[in-house]
Amino acid sequence: MECRTKEVWDAIKRLAVRGAPAIGVAAAYGVVLGVMQEEGRRRPDAALVKEVCDYLATSRPTAVNLFWALNRMRAVSAPRGDWKAALLAEARSIEAEDQEVCRRIGQHGAKLLSSGDVVLTHCNAGALATAGMGTALAVVYAAVAEGKQITVYADETRPLLQGSRLTAWELSRSGVPVTVICDNVAASVMRDKGVSLVITGADRIAANGDAANKIGTYGLAILAREHGIPFYVAAPTSTLDLSLAHGGLIPIEEREALEVSHGLGRRTAPPGVAIYNPAFDVTPARYITGIITEHGIAAPPYEVSLRRLAQTMC
Amino acid sequence: MECRTKEVWDAIKRLAVRGAPAIGVAAAYGVVLGVMQEEGRRRPDAALVKEVCDYLATSRPTAVNLFWALNRMRAVSAPRGDWKAALLAEARSIEAEDQEVCRRIGQHGAKLLSSGDVVLTHCNAGALATAGMGTALAVVYAAVAEGKQITVYADETRPLLQGSRLTAWELSRSGVPVTVICDNVAASVMRDKGVSLVITGADRIAANGDAANKIGTYGLAILAREHGIPFYVAAPTSTLDLSLAHGGLIPIEEREALEVSHGLGRRTAPPGVAIYNPAFDVTPARYITGIITEHGIAAPPYEVSLRRLAQTMC
Repeated sequence: MECRTKEVWDAIKRLAVRGAPAIGVAAAYGVVLGVMQEEGRRRPDAALVKEVCDYLATSRPTAVNLFWALNRMRAVSAPRGDWKAALLAEARSIEAEDQEVCRRIGQHGAKLLSSGDVVLTHCNAGALATAGMGTALAVVYAAVAEGKQITVYADETRPLLQGSRLTAWELSRSGVPVTVICDNVAASVMRDKGVSLVITGADRIAANGDAANKIGTYGLAILAREHGIPFYVAAPTSTLDLSLAHGGLIPIEEREALEVSHGLGRRTAPPGVAIYNPAFDVTPARYITGIITEHGIAAPPYEVSLRRLAQTMC
Repeated sequence: MECRTKEVWDAIKRLAVRGAPAIGVAAAYGVVLGVMQEEGRRRPDAALVKEVCDYLATSRPTAVNLFWALNRMRAVSAPRGDWKAALLAEARSIEAEDQEVCRRIGQHGAKLLSSGDVVLTHCNAGALATAGMGTALAVVYAAVAEGKQITVYADETRPLLQGSRLTAWELSRSGVPVTVICDNVAASVMRDKGVSLVITGADRIAANGDAANKIGTYGLAILAREHGIPFYVAAPTSTLDLSLAHGGLIPIEEREALEVSHGLGRRTAPPGVAIYNPAFDVTPARYITGIITEHGIAAPPYEVSLRRLAQTMC
């Protein structure tokens, strides 16, 4: 369980793999690797699978897709003892389902967009965050595939700049016009640049619709409402955590100060100064116009609509 | 007019000198330098002073203190022909007045703070932005000097990080507890960390109280109101531009994309991607609880209170 599972754990921890759905898929394959590498020393069984899953679950706390994928892996059985085949089949299912889920999120969300619309997004909820075409960006890709002209403003998303480094990269590579802005420009862009819609991803959504996502999302949602702009969250139903009544119960990861003070290769804060670096924030459901999932767009009151979606899942 | 005035022009343009009051003071001394360096070739006169002032006025468009200081320099007369002495005396007056103005802003503003208060600020409106102890930070320094315990959250302020590089530096050097946050953490800090007050500086304030300040201020003001936190602007009356009826008339400087894509020593956006980089935004007066000046704190309606302050000035 040392070597390759440790690499997957590290990749999730240091964000080489990031984005809630991608974390789930990576963790599923990490279980296969972890069980297989023990094979020489120990006969795989459900206890070993549980052990590997428990280990991978310690990598990051907020994105619930990690725990969701690991729960699916824990539930795998191998009646004929072929654990490798059984676990690999489940990991492949998780990956294939995510691709299909992304496609459907795009399909449902694209109905919200008209040609000429301007979308503002935060962080990266695209192909680089999922096994498929993304969540928030799947909506853009699907609208563009339908022939609609969509332009995007991408918040650079400090401290790690997933907006400028990932979102701008994948959109421009796909030929979608994208403009990068510093996070603090979002309010001006909403007022002056005709933003039609804000769409972000999510890392965990509570039963009442409160949604944890990349730090800065909460502020964006307030700014969107102040400017009369609809604010949508796009996420697979695997991001729902109906066991939590509200977003205050979602564990928020706090990351190290170095990401802020040295995140770009050069010290940008004086030595010894305190830095507060939460990786996520929780947007209260009252700011969220709708939650775009693979089963359709949930509307408030989310206690009802999300529970109904969860039943669709079963 | 080539050499040393050009250096002052450059220093303002590339933000080696920044902060509206500091720009005004630097420009005043720039006029002295510009007139003096012509002395060998040309006899100083009012026309030369005007020429130098016109040149320096092209360095940056938004902070009105630049034009205010240059207007004072243009109005200098030298009845006995000693232009150097006359211009230098006026530049020194502008500098000395700014120190006194900062002190008074601190004095008036400190009444707003109680021991235990938590202040959130943006960019740098401190000693490094003025000839004195600052504007927004003067309020903090004055409260601390009165024995109040004040802690500060400093937005790092992308793209050029004046918050982490300047504000955090000067506050920690003065022993004021300060925590740096990425700009997009402000909403979370307002909700979770007991922020009592937001105070920022300003670069130009229109007759109706609309205030231009560092990009991001407008969003902060909205977030403050949403959290029921008072939002104050601290600025000398030299920042007032009563010739403009509202903030929509304030020219907003747009700076080069490189500040965003390469501002931290390393490329952080893909080549060829569009970047929108306004240096300022305008906060509508309706979000501003009060404007702290050297003559007291102006309250809404600002059309009345600012005009009254301007009369105090005469």
